[in-house]
Amino acid sequence: MSELITLAHGNGGRLMRELIEEIFAHALADSHIDTSADAATIDMHEGVAMLTTDSFTVKPLQFPGGDIGSLAVHGTVNDLAVSGATPRYLTLNAIIEEGFSIGQLRILITSLARAARECGVRVVAGDTKVVARGEGSGLYLATTGVGFRPAPVDLGMHRIKEGDHIIVSGPVGDHGTAVLLAREQFGLRGDLKSDAASVLPLTLAVRELPGLRFMRDPTRGGIATVMHEVARATRYGVHLDESAIAVRGSVRTVCDMLGYDPLYLACEGRVVAVAAPDQSDELVQRWRAFDIGREAAVIGKITRGNAVVLVTPLGGERLLQELEDDPLPRIC
Amino acid sequence: MSELITLAHGNGGRLMRELIEEIFAHALADSHIDTSADAATIDMHEGVAMLTTDSFTVKPLQFPGGDIGSLAVHGTVNDLAVSGATPRYLTLNAIIEEGFSIGQLRILITSLARAARECGVRVVAGDTKVVARGEGSGLYLATTGVGFRPAPVDLGMHRIKEGDHIIVSGPVGDHGTAVLLAREQFGLRGDLKSDAASVLPLTLAVRELPGLRFMRDPTRGGIATVMHEVARATRYGVHLDESAIAVRGSVRTVCDMLGYDPLYLACEGRVVAVAAPDQSDELVQRWRAFDIGREAAVIGKITRGNAVVLVTPLGGERLLQELEDDPLPRIC
Repeated sequence: MSELITLAHGNGGRLMRELIEEIFAHALADSHIDTSADAATIDMHEGVAMLTTDSFTVKPLQFPGGDIGSLAVHGTVNDLAVSGATPRYLTLNAIIEEGFSIGQLRILITSLARAARECGVRVVAGDTKVVARGEGSGLYLATTGVGFRPAPVDLGMHRIKEGDHIIVSGPVGDHGTAVLLAREQFGLRGDLKSDAASVLPLTLAVRELPGLRFMRDPTRGGIATVMHEVARATRYGVHLDESAIAVRGSVRTVCDMLGYDPLYLACEGRVVAVAAPDQSDELVQRWRAFDIGREAAVIGKITRGNAVVLVTPLGGERLLQELEDDPLPRIC
Repeated sequence: MSELITLAHGNGGRLMRELIEEIFAHALADSHIDTSADAATIDMHEGVAMLTTDSFTVKPLQFPGGDIGSLAVHGTVNDLAVSGATPRYLTLNAIIEEGFSIGQLRILITSLARAARECGVRVVAGDTKVVARGEGSGLYLATTGVGFRPAPVDLGMHRIKEGDHIIVSGPVGDHGTAVLLAREQFGLRGDLKSDAASVLPLTLAVRELPGLRFMRDPTRGGIATVMHEVARATRYGVHLDESAIAVRGSVRTVCDMLGYDPLYLACEGRVVAVAAPDQSDELVQRWRAFDIGREAAVIGKITRGNAVVLVTPLGGERLLQELEDDPLPRIC
């Protein structure tokens, strides 16, 4: 096999078949993917079937703490997880730029396969396309996930009430900052790693708590954007307690230098939850039992009004606006 | 709303929300898509659940007979249809290049929504990403489909036997040739239209015929590539009767001028079927009842040996090789 992707790797013929067999089917052997079928049969599990999809255009393709392959699994697994579902099946789309290194493709798809195995999901169908040089950016991926939610689990913004507590499972902004630092043009380097990970252990641990109202993973636009979505959908306000929101020192330093606000930066391994006030402590305790939830904390509450307000350590109030300009493109 | 896509349309904030509400959710209103949810709940239907995915990078985005929007529905609907399933749900990924026209995006997504309506599928989840100028090609789409196959329907290459007949539902190579002509650099224009369409009416009409073994839509690599896939999987050979394979005059003219073989060019609205010899006539008759199946015909048979052979009108035999170089990139 030649070492760089050519347009012929996308034409349906021999080179494409070999590429799919040697890289995709090989890495995904555990998934029992049948590359000769038009559609995969999937077993229906107990509960309510749920479907979600996500595309991945992160730049660079590898960053401290992850790469586009593992991210493409975690992003879709997490969307199902925060919906209260157990992810079971994934499909995979790869749009590869002519000239991309086949060796790097192998590394990234192997990473994807490992992440899928760790999350207990099977990649059951896929598609690859090759686009000409200058019409892509190395590799774009998209994954679609099917999961099953136990019928009694009922989560959604419609369940949010005034006085509910807002909980986040860990420090915010790590992923956005790590990707930023991985871009060479900034000339910065740090020991910061992305938080990118499956949040499934966290959501499985709490999804049947009766006082749990809603969960979301704060990706693009960060926790401030999730709070805006809550305020818009519920017509309640949100008060966040700045001193309760963990932000790593290195994230704060980079944000101060470059003028970013960590509340608007993407996380890829955190969960924001809204829970009844009498169950928020229980939720925090359950999350703290996990490494990725060690710094879980109540960070605010649902209020009257319709504003998203940050209460500063000195008791001042700062309105968190809806995100307008892109603070940081291509982080997922 | 400004008229061109900016990176801020992909950042999770206000512009992205407005873009999704005003274009995607608006066009897909019939689908009852909930753009505020992380995952969509889907009803399970009778039968066996099937999952498939496809990416779309066709260039140009609009061509005689279709566009990337309708193609993104038909491609995935057809993969489920030829598997014997009735498609029900789609998810949609859009990777949009900075600077793309919002007006054109609206036209293409409206076309996609119309095609989904016509096929009886609901688009229940989606994701958009915006990439910088020069890192895309206007618009790439990916769709993933969920469908349900009646439990008694059992189709697959494992059911193919020596002596089975091969049937195609209409003329071949229209789509590939139409896309080729739509590329201005060729300086050619014809009245040829792509065959791109849903083949669901055809597959529903025959999927319960007990003698039907296998169906596939001959997209990338054309019918020659489907025949190679059959030969490789079954270890049988294939004899195709050149005089029985319909090729439109305009397709033949263009192929002769440019050195393409229509048997290797993509169709996007045809089905190749393999059926028991005593049921191939019944299958052809059922297909001919439809406009898109009017020219259905038996075009060959499954033989001993392992070669894909074209029998010419004069009785000569030509070996059809597996596709190597890309005859025509970016046709789907």
